[in-house]
Amino acid sequence: MRLLECVPNISEGRDRDKIASIAEEVKKHRGVRLLDYSSDRDHHRSVFTFIGEPEAIQEAAFAFTLKALDLIDMREHKGGHPRLGAVDVVPFVPIQEVKMEEAVQIAHEFGKGLGKRGVPVFFYEEAATRPERRDLPLIREGEYEGLTEKLKDPRWKPDEGPDHFDPKSGATVVGARFPLVAYNVNLKTRDLALAKEIARKVRFKDGGFLHVRAMGVDLKEREMVQVSMNLTDYRVTNIPKVYEFIKREALKKGIEVGGTEIVGLIPLGVLEGIAQYYLSCERFSLRQVIEQRILESD
Amino acid sequence: MRLLECVPNISEGRDRDKIASIAEEVKKHRGVRLLDYSSDRDHHRSVFTFIGEPEAIQEAAFAFTLKALDLIDMREHKGGHPRLGAVDVVPFVPIQEVKMEEAVQIAHEFGKGLGKRGVPVFFYEEAATRPERRDLPLIREGEYEGLTEKLKDPRWKPDEGPDHFDPKSGATVVGARFPLVAYNVNLKTRDLALAKEIARKVRFKDGGFLHVRAMGVDLKEREMVQVSMNLTDYRVTNIPKVYEFIKREALKKGIEVGGTEIVGLIPLGVLEGIAQYYLSCERFSLRQVIEQRILESD
Repeated sequence: MRLLECVPNISEGRDRDKIASIAEEVKKHRGVRLLDYSSDRDHHRSVFTFIGEPEAIQEAAFAFTLKALDLIDMREHKGGHPRLGAVDVVPFVPIQEVKMEEAVQIAHEFGKGLGKRGVPVFFYEEAATRPERRDLPLIREGEYEGLTEKLKDPRWKPDEGPDHFDPKSGATVVGARFPLVAYNVNLKTRDLALAKEIARKVRFKDGGFLHVRAMGVDLKEREMVQVSMNLTDYRVTNIPKVYEFIKREALKKGIEVGGTEIVGLIPLGVLEGIAQYYLSCERFSLRQVIEQRILESD
Repeated sequence: MRLLECVPNISEGRDRDKIASIAEEVKKHRGVRLLDYSSDRDHHRSVFTFIGEPEAIQEAAFAFTLKALDLIDMREHKGGHPRLGAVDVVPFVPIQEVKMEEAVQIAHEFGKGLGKRGVPVFFYEEAATRPERRDLPLIREGEYEGLTEKLKDPRWKPDEGPDHFDPKSGATVVGARFPLVAYNVNLKTRDLALAKEIARKVRFKDGGFLHVRAMGVDLKEREMVQVSMNLTDYRVTNIPKVYEFIKREALKKGIEVGGTEIVGLIPLGVLEGIAQYYLSCERFSLRQVIEQRILESD
């Protein structure tokens, strides 16, 4: 089954009616499932997750975006979360049988369509057109309030759309990325320095595993410390690799693992990878999972 | 999501039109998904797998059975596989959020309905009304050809329906059981005795793990031997427990595992259990799996 996910973030987290009617746009599209949406009043921001065949997702994402641009006015927007526009970020995420190249192409087509409607569009992560635009926080630097200045800088010429913007809508960042797996390993110690040391060893930017971000966190109430991770491409570095590494590193100091947690949604492929790693399974396929088969029988 | 599976076996494996029109009966039922069906010409037998909400499955199974009884004539049936009737076995299998007690109740209601139509019904496995009827091979002993004799024996009075039968249809065995996980571990040796010895240690009937059946098999072409298993309740004994045991036992003799395989369909819960076992995950739920969430969003 071909599955592409879209996880847009919009700058409206308070008006329930507006948020619900933007969500309704997604549901109108056949074969598209709105899995979840949640709003944060303080951030004045909502995140939606919908999934389906790539073509249907592209259409649903565009209708969703037009509706949100219609209902949200950035001139009135204040909130705690960095943002550039009414429809702030639109990431496309390949989940099953969709190549990253296809997600990138959809992001580009989507951005082009949005640009034609007068919204400046920046492409990020896998859809970035230059290395310095891969990173979302960097693109968002200066935020909505600094957008006029930013667009004067030739280095920030938008990838699509005009180099000026409707103050009602601001700009939109569109991209493609792999699904993010949030995974934490708790250690039975109060030694935060150890968690930080292991986090450094495990994360890519300090010489650790590919596609791993990590930090050490103090779990005061539980009287433990935690190595908190994001795995940004589980097909390359899946949970078992980091778990076994952290377990070994902690044991060197005589510290045991006090449980682990997978936070939020994961693709079935993550569980498949875990089974493969530990059981050296031959030829196991997701199609052997009954629930997956049900999806395919639709 | 509540999911009950039904895996009926019928005594028709050759006439494609008949088999297809029996399958069609299932598809008529809203919310019921026919995941698979396959026929064996030599056995002259077909197996169907369909799944959905318990109520819908019960209805679909009954319509399916009436259609099969209509189209199949046991008086003409010859085949390699033991059987008592046209609709030979109807097992109900709880997959998600369905208790075994409920599957048993559905099996009993289903059997009662079939009994009223004049078919002798025996309940087996979890739906058995007495211990000596738990075992399917025992119920089927004597087969269709011995059914007249069998029904004369008061110990074989049917659980539902008359103690005589329509020669066109024979009798039906109805039951409830957990999903069966077929799992094999290959060993890098030609020593079949070792595979047989480990199979004995791992299987329940010789003092091994609960809900495990096992045998040693020679994989001549691959120049290995295999411990071939059925796990009949993966919630009690899942794959990791037998895998780790077999790996250790083989290593004692200096033999390594040469890969393992999961055969056929498994519930998502099996993969969840594997992740729990190896990663000591806290609070992980199937609802965190995107594909599962899609099913629930229907």
